[in-house]
Formats: sequence, C-alpha cells, structure tokens
Amino acid sequence: MSLRFKEGIKDMSEELFARHEATLRQALEAIATRDYWSPYPESMSGKIYGETAAADGEAAFRAYLGRPFGLDQPTTGAWVGAEHSPFGLALDVRYPALDVDAVIVRATAALPVWRKAGVRGRAGVCLEILSRLNRRSFEMAHAVMQTTGQAFGMAFQAGGPHAQDRGLEAVAYAVRAQSQVPEDCRWEKPQGRNPPLLMDKAYHLVPRGVALVIGCSTFPTWNGYPGLFASLATGNPVIVKPHPGAVLPLAITVAVCRQVLAEAGYPPDLVSLAVDTVEAPLAKDLALRPEVALIDFTGSSSFGHWLEDNARAARVFTEKAGVNFVVIQGTDDLAGMVRNLAFSLCLYSGQMCTTPQNIFIPREGIVADGQPMSFDAVAEAIVAGVAKLVTDPERAVEVLGAIQSPATLERLDQARGLGRVLLDSRALSHPRFPEARVRTPLLLTVDAGQEEAFRRELFGPISVIVATRDIDQAIRLGVETAKAQGALTAAVYATDPEVLARMEEAAIDAGVALSENLTGGVFANQSAAFSDFHGTGANPAANAALCDDAFVAERFRVVQVRRPV
Amino acid sequence: MSLRFKEGIKDMSEELFARHEATLRQALEAIATRDYWSPYPESMSGKIYGETAAADGEAAFRAYLGRPFGLDQPTTGAWVGAEHSPFGLALDVRYPALDVDAVIVRATAALPVWRKAGVRGRAGVCLEILSRLNRRSFEMAHAVMQTTGQAFGMAFQAGGPHAQDRGLEAVAYAVRAQSQVPEDCRWEKPQGRNPPLLMDKAYHLVPRGVALVIGCSTFPTWNGYPGLFASLATGNPVIVKPHPGAVLPLAITVAVCRQVLAEAGYPPDLVSLAVDTVEAPLAKDLALRPEVALIDFTGSSSFGHWLEDNARAARVFTEKAGVNFVVIQGTDDLAGMVRNLAFSLCLYSGQMCTTPQNIFIPREGIVADGQPMSFDAVAEAIVAGVAKLVTDPERAVEVLGAIQSPATLERLDQARGLGRVLLDSRALSHPRFPEARVRTPLLLTVDAGQEEAFRRELFGPISVIVATRDIDQAIRLGVETAKAQGALTAAVYATDPEVLARMEEAAIDAGVALSENLTGGVFANQSAAFSDFHGTGANPAANAALCDDAFVAERFRVVQVRRPV
Repeated sequence: MSLRFKEGIKDMSEELFARHEATLRQALEAIATRDYWSPYPESMSGKIYGETAAADGEAAFRAYLGRPFGLDQPTTGAWVGAEHSPFGLALDVRYPALDVDAVIVRATAALPVWRKAGVRGRAGVCLEILSRLNRRSFEMAHAVMQTTGQAFGMAFQAGGPHAQDRGLEAVAYAVRAQSQVPEDCRWEKPQGRNPPLLMDKAYHLVPRGVALVIGCSTFPTWNGYPGLFASLATGNPVIVKPHPGAVLPLAITVAVCRQVLAEAGYPPDLVSLAVDTVEAPLAKDLALRPEVALIDFTGSSSFGHWLEDNARAARVFTEKAGVNFVVIQGTDDLAGMVRNLAFSLCLYSGQMCTTPQNIFIPREGIVADGQPMSFDAVAEAIVAGVAKLVTDPERAVEVLGAIQSPATLERLDQARGLGRVLLDSRALSHPRFPEARVRTPLLLTVDAGQEEAFRRELFGPISVIVATRDIDQAIRLGVETAKAQGALTAAVYATDPEVLARMEEAAIDAGVALSENLTGGVFANQSAAFSDFHGTGANPAANAALCDDAFVAERFRVVQVRRPV
Repeated sequence: MSLRFKEGIKDMSEELFARHEATLRQALEAIATRDYWSPYPESMSGKIYGETAAADGEAAFRAYLGRPFGLDQPTTGAWVGAEHSPFGLALDVRYPALDVDAVIVRATAALPVWRKAGVRGRAGVCLEILSRLNRRSFEMAHAVMQTTGQAFGMAFQAGGPHAQDRGLEAVAYAVRAQSQVPEDCRWEKPQGRNPPLLMDKAYHLVPRGVALVIGCSTFPTWNGYPGLFASLATGNPVIVKPHPGAVLPLAITVAVCRQVLAEAGYPPDLVSLAVDTVEAPLAKDLALRPEVALIDFTGSSSFGHWLEDNARAARVFTEKAGVNFVVIQGTDDLAGMVRNLAFSLCLYSGQMCTTPQNIFIPREGIVADGQPMSFDAVAEAIVAGVAKLVTDPERAVEVLGAIQSPATLERLDQARGLGRVLLDSRALSHPRFPEARVRTPLLLTVDAGQEEAFRRELFGPISVIVATRDIDQAIRLGVETAKAQGALTAAVYATDPEVLARMEEAAIDAGVALSENLTGGVFANQSAAFSDFHGTGANPAANAALCDDAFVAERFRVVQVRRPV
C-alpha cells in the first residue's frame, strides 16, 4: 500500500515514521487478514519489559499519589480530581482544570500544522506515543487497577498492551483509509481528434475539527484509545475527558501524547486533558461546543443517547450498554463449558461490557457429553463452577478484582429479588487491600415469563439463568433483548449443527458477535484487536465497531484542487 | 484486490458477475488512481449506440406519454403522477401508487437472500442494471430533458452515461469497502510452550436495512444513482422516491432494476418506486419509518436539515444547496476566462448545484493579459460573454435548456431588486417548443457591503458580481458564505502564485472543491465521476461526498462468528 509518500514534512516526524514503519506495515497486514498479531507483549515477563520494569512502574505510579499531576496545558488555575480506588486507596491526585476556551483556540490554531504533517507524519507520532505507552505498561497497570478495580494481571494486559493494540489498530485503519485517496492525479480525457483535456488534480485530506474522547470508568485506555488515535491520526486535535473515577490512566496517556508531540515539533495542545467531577461534569458542555466535530463515547446508554440526540454538530461514535446472552442446547465437553462460562461470569466481576448476562436454557434440559441433562443440573453445574472459582479469596480476587462503582453494589443487593437465588453474592476480604469492594457473583434463575429479570441490563456480577420453553424461545429471547437493549456478545453451546446454523442467523439478525462452543482459553467477553470486531453498530449497544472503515472514514474529508495543465 | 470470492451463490448472478468483472476491475483501478475513465460513452454517435438508437430511444420515450407506467410492484390501486415538462409538454404518465407497508414487508423479507448473494452476486446485478441503462441512454435523455428542462445534449450526457458513471463509481466503492473485510480467518495465538489458541472466524457482511433514495428535480439520475447503487451493492433493499416533477427517469431506472433482479432470480421488490405529488408528499412518512436505515437525499437545504434532524433511525446522506463562488485576481487569458465563466453561468440556466453564483472582484480591478483592467471592465466583459452566448435563440436553448420550476421564475423576477442590473434576464422563444420556460441569465453587481444580495443562495440563472475592497476580502467573503450557507464549488482566476496558494488554503478551510484558472473545456460546474469528488461533507452544502469511503462504509455492518478449531 502506498502511504501518500509525497506529502508530509521532512523532519523529526519523518524520523519517527521511519522508526515505526515496519510495525505499521505489519498492522496494515493484520487488519487485512485479521489473523493474530500484536507488537505489544501481553506477558509481564522481566525478560521482555526489563527486570526492573515492574518495580519501576509501581514506583512511578506511587509518585503520582497525593500530588498535583504535571501537565503543562492551558488551565483555569483550579485543581480537580477525586479518584478513590475500588481497592480502598485514596489516590488524591489533583489535575490542572482545563481552560477549555483557551485549548480550543490553541487546538484550532494547531490544526493546519497537524494537517500538513501528512499521513506519515501523524502516523509516526502516533506510533511513537504507543511505543512509549507500551514501555510504561507497569505504571499504567497500577493506574488502571487502582481506578477501575481490575485485578493487576488484567489491568496490565487490558490497560496496557491490549489497549495499545486497539490504538494501533485505529491508526492502521486511519492510515489505510487516508491512503486510499490518492495525493494527486493527472486527468487526461480524450477529445476525439482534438487534443485531450488535461487537468492536474490534488486531493487534500482535511480533518473534521476538534475531537472529544469521553472515557469510561472500567476500561479507560482500552475503550479510549481507538477514538483518540483514530482522530489524531486523521489530523484532528483531541480533548480527552476521562470518567471522574478513572482519570489517571488517561492523564498519563495525554502526558505522553503531549511530550511526543512537542519533541516532534508539533503543538502539544493537539491533545489535552479535561478533568471533571461528578458534581461539576464537563461532558455536555464540551459535546455541545460548535468546534467539536467528532465525539467518541463509552459509557451508559442514557448519556450515549443524549449525545447522539444533542451533539448535532459532531459525528458521534458511541459504545453503550447491552444485554449479552448465552444459549445452551448441548455440549460435548460439559466440564470445559462450565469452566469457560464460570470464568466469563467472574472475570472482573462481570463489569465488562462483553460479559454474558442471560443464559437461556430449554426447560427440558440439554445434551451433555452424549447424555440428557436436566435444566436444574446444568444450572447447578454452572453454579458449582462459579463457586469453585471464588472459594479461595487469594485466588478469587485475581479474577474478580474489585467493584468499580458503589452503584454496582446497590444493584447487586436489589437484584436478589428478581429471581430464585442459585448462588448468593458475598463480600470477600482482599488479602492485601482490606478496604477493597470485593463481591462474588450473584446467580439467579427465572422462568422465561419473568421478563423483568432479564429484559434489561444488570451491570456487574449478576447472571440470570432463564428456563425457556425450547431452544427456539431461547434464541428468540436472546435476539429480542439484543435488538431492544443492545448486545455486544452472544455465545452458544450446541451439538446440533442445525441449532448452530440458526444461532448464526440469529446473531446476524440481532447484529451481535457470536462465539460458538467456547470450552478452552478463549472467552466470550474477550475481544482481540486486529481480529475481533468489538461491537457491530447494528444494535443499540453501539453505533460503531472497533475498528472498521466506518470508524475512521468520516474523521477526515477530501478537498480537491484542480487546474489545467 | 480479492473480491470475497468464497461467498456468493453460483447461479445467474455469478454469470452476471463474470460478464462485468473486467469493467468492475477497471472501475476499482479508476477510484484508486482517479485518472479519467468511463465505460459508458458520452458521445451520441450512432457508431457507438447503434444507428437506430436515437430514433428508438425517442419512440420508447413517446410510448410512455399519456399511459399508465408498467411496474409490477405492490400498489394501493391508485395512480399518481403530474409531471409537466419545462418545455411545455404535458407528460400525463401515471404511476402505480406504492403500497409502502407491503413493499417494506417484502423488501425486509428479501434482505437475507440479497445478503447471501454476496459482494460479487450483488455487483454483477448492479453492473448489469447499469449496462442496460446505458443502452437506453437515448430514451433516458428524453425522459430527463422533458422533466428537468435540460437541453437534449446535456440530458443525454448527465442523465445517461455520466449518471451511470456515478452509479458504477458507487458500486466500486461499495465492493472495495466490503472486500476489505476478509471473509474468514484462522486465528492462531501463541501460548509459549503450550499449544496455540486456535479459532476459526467468519466475518459476515450485514446490510443496514431498507434504504430510501429521495430524488431531485434537476438531476434525478446523476444525483440519485450514487445512493441507489451504494445501498443496493451493500445489500440493502431500496425505495426510490423521485421528485414529483421528475419521476420518469427514475421510474425507468426502477423498472430496469426490477427486471434484472427478477431475471437473476432475486425478488424484484428489492427496488421499488414511491411516486408522490406536491399535494400529498410521501418523503417524511417514508423517512420516519423505523425500517428505513439509510436515506440519500438531494434537494433543498430546509428539507435536508429536516431529514438530518428527524430521521434519527437512519443514516442520512444529504446534498443540499450552497453558494458557489469565483474569485478573480487576474488572468493570462482574458478571452478564455470570459468564455469559460460565461458558459458556466449559462449552462442549464444556472440550475446546477455546482453553478457559480457570486463573482468576487477587487474594486481596484484585476490584471488581464499583463495589463490592469478595471472592475467595471471585467464585469462588462463577463456580461458581454454571457450576452454573446444567448444571442441566437436556436443555439442558446441548447445551452440554457428550460427553467425546471416556476419558483425559479419568481426568484428571477425578485432578484432584479438586489443590485444594479448589468444584464437583464429575458424570455427566449424556443424554436421547437413554443411553451418552453426559457430565460437568459440575470447578472447583477453589488458592493461587498450589500450582503443581502450574495449571502444566500439564489438558485437559477442569477449571478452577482461583487466589488470587494481587495483580494483578501474577496477570498474571505467566499469562505464565509461557504461556511455559513455551504458551497459545492469554488473557482479562482489568479496570476499571482501567492493568491493561488491562499485560495487553496481558503478552499481547504471552507471545505469546498476548487478549480483554478479554467479557460478551456473544463468548467467549474462539471464534476467527473471516478476523478472529481462531488461535495466534501465539510460545509453545509452536503454531509457526504460522491463518492468516497465514508459514503459506503456505513451501509453495511460486520457480524463475526468464531469457534475453536
């Protein structure tokens, strides 16, 4: 692929591009084949990240605590920040309040320079930012863990290399989309016996304007990087507005962005951080600014819909909530199915937007390892699988993490009344963080008639095993909830190929990604960059996918200039 | 480029694909290089279209007049249609009123079949439709002429081959975008010393839903084909709602679509025609149907904005109105500039969405052929150029055509009061159509302070020559009106490279396509498929471009299905 080689400035950013070109070309290959690939190791091994990386990262994290966060951006002079760790730590980091007017003026003024950097210049800067973020993955892991409640291992992977993967994936899509527009052409139209009409045409890529990224509290980097890097790589200045409960991971990110931009000779105000509080939120004000032309949002359905309805000057990309589901008809590997499902339900205490919520099982039971198995027996097996995973608190907390929001604790308490409790949620004492909000999952069962229990999202460690009339009803209820409430994932366990085929059609109908017969080391809630599309845009859970052409194609426009030769 | 070869059905549509594959591949090459290319000859020569083609086409057109139009689609039983030619002919064609509920049920039912046809199957059908439309270009020329008021030569080219080019271009973009999503992959993730994780993944392309194309009265095919073919090629059933004044060209188009679909074994209700009247318009009702997921609209700014604001269940692509402009600093070819500008202003009586409206010239004059030339002298030269073009009625009507809408006549009358009249509009008698609405252009001049004369769109043969303080103000006023009111084209005549450079930056700022120093056979209002982007999406004139990746990327979604190997 020709990467618009004529344009772009010959300076520091050219050097950055050369440094990272091989990685970018591999990323372009990866999005074309969607095979497994990543340049950012997910292993915490000292052999990869350096023997002192773990200790250095923790020290870097600790150095933020109780201090003002250094960020040389236009500020009102005030300091904001009230993050409190789900593990009990008061972070007490204060961030300089953004002077929004000033930064929009500066970002708008910086836009032409960033536009002229060209596709390669911008890609070089983006890849250098990602490379530096990668080296700081331990520091990021602590920041993600102590704001989101993820266990350390998950915070490292999802908050570090996997988020960097998603950022790089967005850069690759942005580079490909931009490179598909030629830089110029000589247009020669034959005129019969007369000389041809000859025109020289130039096709300028023009960014849309100021971009706004609104972060979420559970995966601030993984969900935030796609929009950030897609907008930046297509030439748009970005204001990052983190969730007030998970600022630090994105503050570190913005600091790295600004540092790399400045070193490469670009105005650092191309990326800025807008920290707000629950009491004085900024998102609506920012979203309604006429200069804001792009918005990427991850969070609640209600605010996502508000943005879609009200931020009319901007192209709004939203990832909202949904009701993910599992349908079970049968399995040839009962133990594997139970292990896989139980882990999916426990991982990060069900606080992933991809966690299965409803498990639809026919009342008459399933076929397991060649034998009939009653509905109750299947439900009990799943309950036993979950119970086993959370028996030993020391091991359990490394899967469950902590509950990010006190609202989830309340929801958990109230959900008990929605059905018959198969496994009650209980508080676990974290071996190292006595104040951590740790809860084991709540498993309920209801009949298909008890719709109030499963027709809406129950965010957190709450699962509902629903007894259906038959497999048809199981599939239909899954599709109906996905169409009405949205869904990011569906899973099916079936031995009957006809059920698998129907479930595949149902997933297409509901616009939801489907996992079939997962019994091993891949889980329904996992989505791998470069291969798995996260979200489809085809049901209310999201109006876009991470990452596809539609996610990047509208972040820039083409202005052509033509002249006779 | 691999065109998703594994999927698609092996039948008639496979044969159609094979028949047209070479053309499609050339189209894919054309959109990548944007050099001149077209498979549909714009010459009316009998050697190309057949010696009887002209007569046959006219006879085919005449056979429609005064009769019910044959279209075997779900109907309410009523007949609608009240087209009256701008050349004075009462067409008296009656169309079967669409049973909207029935067609939406049938189209929705047909969607899975059309989805399963795959990228190649759909492309084959689309290219066969375009090929048949091409053979009927003379018939179409009469239909376009007698509904839009275009002169016959223009109606042939713009309504026939050039419109077919834009349709094929949309198919090419749709095929490329879809083919960039691989059909499947085997994902192999290394696990250190353990066996790798192995997953088979399939990526299904899923259409968005029912698409609605709302046609305009001036270029029903040229502006309608991109949306029609982009939606159809990506798997969406299409309802075509023509402007009540220009139904026949799209009725013929829909009839061809249905015929080819049926012959290829697909449900013809994948494309249907919804004819309405000015008294009982259908567009709003159709646009608000929850099943309608895509809307392509060309027409007034007010209805375009209404669609963007209200048709929230759909992705809405609009091409609205704008205020196109010319800036003149100087020229090395005064005669060429005047000839070119005069033709641009006269062509189809300024009823192109790309016709220049405002001509900004510094009060102190310009440099022409190396000599200073006063503002008044430049204005007089342009007036003389226009006057010369319309002196001989027989030749004038072949450039001017007729006025499509009586509203334009009223606007023309009222516009006289907006400034000093340099050249008054007058009625011309058409040599062959005595009742034709033919008017010569109105040229006004105002000072830059008289903003009411040039800050808004004056659709039709109305041009305003604006005296500005200097070249800076000329550029600035052009940019300001483009940003506020939209603009599809800008043109500059300049001998000073610095002015050209500033104008190029201004065009980028205003998001408007720029033509520099046109003095020959290319005109600011012309936009060639495969090379010129029509619209940018970067100012209020349009929220999309014909045709780019953004125009097609959101017309389908990807639903993935993965399973362990």
